[in-house]
Amino acid sequence: MNDTIHSMHAHRSIRRFTDEIVPREHILEATKAGQAAATSSAVQSYSALHITDNEKRQAIADLCGPQQKVHDCGAFFVICADNRRHMVMHERHARTFDQRLEAFLVSVIDATLFAQNFTLAFESMGYGTCYIGGLRNDLHAVNDILKLPDGVFPVYGLCVGHPNEQPIARPRLAPEAILHENVYPDDDTIMRDIESYDEVYRAYLQARGAAPANWSDAMLKRFEKVARPALASFYESQGARID
Amino acid sequence: MNDTIHSMHAHRSIRRFTDEIVPREHILEATKAGQAAATSSAVQSYSALHITDNEKRQAIADLCGPQQKVHDCGAFFVICADNRRHMVMHERHARTFDQRLEAFLVSVIDATLFAQNFTLAFESMGYGTCYIGGLRNDLHAVNDILKLPDGVFPVYGLCVGHPNEQPIARPRLAPEAILHENVYPDDDTIMRDIESYDEVYRAYLQARGAAPANWSDAMLKRFEKVARPALASFYESQGARID
Repeated sequence: MNDTIHSMHAHRSIRRFTDEIVPREHILEATKAGQAAATSSAVQSYSALHITDNEKRQAIADLCGPQQKVHDCGAFFVICADNRRHMVMHERHARTFDQRLEAFLVSVIDATLFAQNFTLAFESMGYGTCYIGGLRNDLHAVNDILKLPDGVFPVYGLCVGHPNEQPIARPRLAPEAILHENVYPDDDTIMRDIESYDEVYRAYLQARGAAPANWSDAMLKRFEKVARPALASFYESQGARID
Repeated sequence: MNDTIHSMHAHRSIRRFTDEIVPREHILEATKAGQAAATSSAVQSYSALHITDNEKRQAIADLCGPQQKVHDCGAFFVICADNRRHMVMHERHARTFDQRLEAFLVSVIDATLFAQNFTLAFESMGYGTCYIGGLRNDLHAVNDILKLPDGVFPVYGLCVGHPNEQPIARPRLAPEAILHENVYPDDDTIMRDIESYDEVYRAYLQARGAAPANWSDAMLKRFEKVARPALASFYESQGARID
C-alpha cells in the first residue's frame, strides 16, 4: 500500500479538536491540491468560504445541530457548488446563463471532487476533518448569515483541525457489495450483503461502547422522516434550476 | 509537499491508453480506498459497475460522444449514486423509502467522495484516469444497456488504464479566486479573477498547440445550449425525487 492509499485508509471523522488554528499556508496548500482534482470541461464550479468571523461561526454552529465543533475546530469551511462566475461572465457578455439540472449537478460534483482532495490533503498533513451535512438543516438561515449571491449553493461544511480524539475506524460495506461486474445484483443478493454488514456494524458499535444496533437499524431511523424538505426550494431561491 | 499531495498535483485527464488491462487486485485496492472516504451518516449510497462485456462497452462508448477510449482503456466503470440498498431494506422491513432532493443529493455527494479517492488511488498506482461526463448524454439509452433497477442513478463514467500520452497539466483558477474569507466577492472582483485566468488559459492552449481561445470563450461556448435537458426526467424515471 503506497502513502496516498495509506492516507485514505487513515481517515476517521474527527469530532473533537484542540484549539490550535490552521495556518494560512496549509489552507492554501490544501486548496491548490483540491483544485488539482478533475473538473467537468474545466468549469471549476465551486468555492470554499473560510469562516473566521467568530460570531458567524457560532451562528452557523448553532444551525448545524447545534455542533459546537463547527465553532471550536481549527478552521471551518463552507463548501459551495458555484455557478456565480459563469453567471457573471454571461451577463458581462450580454448572454443569459440558462441551464437546468445538469449544470446544478455538475457544480455539486465539481465541488465534491475538489472537497475530497482538499480534505485528504489536510489529513495527509496530520489534520483531522469532519464533513458537516448539518449545514443543510436550514440553508435559508445559513444564507441570512453568509449573504451569498445567486448562483452560489452551499452543500456542506468542513471542520479541519488537530484531532483531540482517536476514534476507531467505522467499517464499510464489503467491497463486493458496491463493486459489480456488468450487471447490478438482485434484491436477495443485496439483502445478504446488508445482513453481513449488519453483523460487522453491530460489533463496531459494541467496540465503541455505543448502544447496540446494526446498520439497518441506523438507516431505517435516519430515513424515518423526509429529510430537509426545504432543500430544493432553497437552491431554487438561489437561482438554481433543478428541473 | 508530501506524497499524497504530490499524487493530486500529478493528475491530468488521460485520453489515450495502452491496451493493458487493469488487474482485479488493483481494482479491489482502489475500491477499498474509495470506500475509506467519508460518507454521510454511513449511508454509503453509491456503487461502481465495472463494464467488462465488450459489446456493452462499445455501445456505451458510442453513447458517450462517441468516445472510443471508453471501450479501449484498461478498465471502465460506471459510477452510480445508489439508494437501491436503502429501498430494498425499507421494503423488507415493510417501510417506504420516501425522500426528496436531500437523499438524491447525498447519494451524488457520497458517490463523488468515493469516486475521487478511487480515482486518486488508481493514479497513485501509476494509472491514468478520465471522468466521463458524456455518460449523461443519453442516460435512458445507457440504461437500456445496463438495466439498472429503481434507486440506481448513473452519474458519470471513469476510464482507467496505462497512459499512452503525457499531456501538460491544465491550469486552474488562482486559489484566491475560489477561497474566500467570510464574505463572497463582488462581481467586479470575480471579473478580474476571470480576466487573469483567461490569459493563463490562452497560454496553456497555445502551448498545447490548440486553437487560440481563453477560458471565457470556452465557457460561453459550453453553455450556449441548455445541456442535457432530459437529465431530471431520467432520474425521476429511476425513482429519484429531486423536488
